[in-house]
Amino acid sequence: MKAQESMEDLLDEIKEELEKGVEKLRILEALRPQDFIDILERLDSEDRRKLAVMIPDSVYVEIIAKLPQQVLNDVLKVLGIRRLARIAIELPVDELADLLEALPPSLRISLLRELPAWKIAEVRPLLKYPPETAGGIMTTRIPAFYEERLVGNAVEEFIARSEFEGYDTSRYIYVVDSKGRLRGIIDIKRFLTSPRNKKLRDIMMRNYIAVKADIDQEEVAKLVVKYDLDEVPVIDDEGVLLGAITADDIMDVLVNEATEDLVKFGGIVKIREPYLAARIRELVRKRIVWLIALYLGDLISVTIISRYEALLSAVIALSFFIPVLTDTGGNAGSQAATLVIRSLAMGEARLSFSDALRIIAKETATSLIMGALLSPIAFSIGYIMSGNALVALTLGLAIILVVYVGSIMGAMLPMVTARLGLDPAVISAPLITTVADATGLTMYFTIATLLINYLHI
Amino acid sequence: MKAQESMEDLLDEIKEELEKGVEKLRILEALRPQDFIDILERLDSEDRRKLAVMIPDSVYVEIIAKLPQQVLNDVLKVLGIRRLARIAIELPVDELADLLEALPPSLRISLLRELPAWKIAEVRPLLKYPPETAGGIMTTRIPAFYEERLVGNAVEEFIARSEFEGYDTSRYIYVVDSKGRLRGIIDIKRFLTSPRNKKLRDIMMRNYIAVKADIDQEEVAKLVVKYDLDEVPVIDDEGVLLGAITADDIMDVLVNEATEDLVKFGGIVKIREPYLAARIRELVRKRIVWLIALYLGDLISVTIISRYEALLSAVIALSFFIPVLTDTGGNAGSQAATLVIRSLAMGEARLSFSDALRIIAKETATSLIMGALLSPIAFSIGYIMSGNALVALTLGLAIILVVYVGSIMGAMLPMVTARLGLDPAVISAPLITTVADATGLTMYFTIATLLINYLHI
Repeated sequence: MKAQESMEDLLDEIKEELEKGVEKLRILEALRPQDFIDILERLDSEDRRKLAVMIPDSVYVEIIAKLPQQVLNDVLKVLGIRRLARIAIELPVDELADLLEALPPSLRISLLRELPAWKIAEVRPLLKYPPETAGGIMTTRIPAFYEERLVGNAVEEFIARSEFEGYDTSRYIYVVDSKGRLRGIIDIKRFLTSPRNKKLRDIMMRNYIAVKADIDQEEVAKLVVKYDLDEVPVIDDEGVLLGAITADDIMDVLVNEATEDLVKFGGIVKIREPYLAARIRELVRKRIVWLIALYLGDLISVTIISRYEALLSAVIALSFFIPVLTDTGGNAGSQAATLVIRSLAMGEARLSFSDALRIIAKETATSLIMGALLSPIAFSIGYIMSGNALVALTLGLAIILVVYVGSIMGAMLPMVTARLGLDPAVISAPLITTVADATGLTMYFTIATLLINYLHI
Repeated sequence: MKAQESMEDLLDEIKEELEKGVEKLRILEALRPQDFIDILERLDSEDRRKLAVMIPDSVYVEIIAKLPQQVLNDVLKVLGIRRLARIAIELPVDELADLLEALPPSLRISLLRELPAWKIAEVRPLLKYPPETAGGIMTTRIPAFYEERLVGNAVEEFIARSEFEGYDTSRYIYVVDSKGRLRGIIDIKRFLTSPRNKKLRDIMMRNYIAVKADIDQEEVAKLVVKYDLDEVPVIDDEGVLLGAITADDIMDVLVNEATEDLVKFGGIVKIREPYLAARIRELVRKRIVWLIALYLGDLISVTIISRYEALLSAVIALSFFIPVLTDTGGNAGSQAATLVIRSLAMGEARLSFSDALRIIAKETATSLIMGALLSPIAFSIGYIMSGNALVALTLGLAIILVVYVGSIMGAMLPMVTARLGLDPAVISAPLITTVADATGLTMYFTIATLLINYLHI
């Protein structure tokens, strides 16, 4: 809740002090750990390293697993391996796993050598699963007790263990059988206030939702949102309790996946780095591929138009309206695509044949009505601007077809990609535009040719 | 975690049974409350009302505040006011506030008349705040105690009150002074396990984050994500504790705002309804305005091209490349815009002058490199496809300018809208395309004219 200007002032002050070669920055003491992430991102590499030396370990424990790769690399250059190990020991296991993933292989090996065996034992189960699965984002430091234990006995151990080493979660107590299989969960409030002579199995809730370790984190997030869960236990194929995923990790998933969808829709391959911290080379690399691919895709349009050279020479005004026609098809397509992508992402529409039919029916009705409303506008404006009846008629008719085809394609492309096992959000707005252009132009010139032949305009 | 096919089978079975006029559906008993939302959405209005009668109150308590408006309207037609009141009494206050907002005014008044005074007293503070602010999404049923109370004494009351009426939150205990101002928070685990003869003020955490009731829910979500909060207390201008916002409500905010951003970027005015349940009339209404507005915007392009009628008649091949040029400008613009929108949404880039300069510098470097890479491709392909050196040279030069201008505009439009106090996500991909088209075409034809005049091609 810091004013925007004060961040600027703060940065200027920090840069000035660093310039002077100050070894200890007094102002840093007033900051929250998360503010350091913002500051580190905004400094250049040199200042970043100078500042990184001064940041205390307790702050690194809060932020190191969240630093963008580029910033982390600079920080690692000034943290010795001993200091890194001290910080790593304090991290929750899921964050330690993230950090290990982000380290260059040689440093990862050195760090693992420095860590105590019990810490490695805790983190190992997480490293088995890819970082974007339930197993990759779970924590294994959770309160789990055998179902036959007495409440009083379990509460005492819970309190002792909480004080000694802490848990990463404490919303629920997990109850397991003798083979470690999850049997029930107990709300912490209920756990601490139940009669102490009861068994855990007598007070546990048997109706809970658990996820398998290998399912995608996005699927977990959907379940959490749908069923308003606070915490989700993670189990293996035999039902053995492996860990739990907390609400704050799910929020990170939601934010990342949602903004990733937006970025993909804008025609960019996955960028996880914050924009301001990303290197130019990286930005060019992620964007140029798409720009070139779409450029080549648009050459289909060039080919189509060039085939009608004779028609265009005769009625040059037909060329004036090319952008308005292709854009409208693309716009109708983006609208339909975003609605369908959202619907699939929220688990509302499914990939079934019957939902596809429902969507086609809805888009057919919607787009034909929209086309009917746009058509007289297109005709009138076309006639006023070109003074040519052929052009006006062509525009009035083509716009209906263009909106219809654009909408159906925009709606179906995400369904098809999802069916192929790809993320529906890879259907970007530019891709729809490119596809819509080709069909739109073909219809435009076909209608113009037909009108010339049949109406002798 | 239901297979997609089984939802279809289930729906078919339900429809069949409803057809037969069955009064009680056995299969409903096996479903989770949230599954009813999916089912109600997919049924037509008639079947929906038939099914709505059979759904038990306990299920409505879980789902009624989450039903899309259209579905809710149908459900309300079969629920009597008495039954609605019984359900409403059981709702958490924030959900009751949402329900009251969604009811038609006459029904809202009848419902308020049926509710007990204590329930109205609980919900009234929420109704004072717009639904999309912190005050609108908070719950007021939270455990709050006076700072001078003894732990033992507070624990007893907490347990008694929990059993009697329950709290909507139980992650933290809130500690207030004699004027009701928030002074600290206590983790529930710490609260229940602290020595009973201590005062609350001695065990409370004084370092917490609270939000004012009138700030936007999106701002709350950003804080929660940034600082990994589980629950956020809401206070008024004097610091008086009003309520708290729970993690699950923040997740709903994140999902809604993120998908809203996506939908806006696709060129659609706010659609909160699920797509499959939305009425055609509604879909047309939300989409046609944009389509017409963008159509009219594209007429600027028509005007620009028509001014170069003489040039086009002389070199007709110039018209073939209109779509590829305008699309590329729009594509570069969408890329830049999505990155900046994301960066603003995540609180990474700020609306300061210095961040604007940083972004312009980054886009200038990135886009000029991309233009330099695209230029020889554009020239070569242009020469091969048109056999015309003027066209090829024009394409090769224009593409650099188009990518540059598209990127800078795409990056700056979200900054400018945000500065004007509007949501940066209203800068949709179609809008960028429309603006990029006009500048792109002007540059294209200007370069062609200059080349003709100076090179005498």
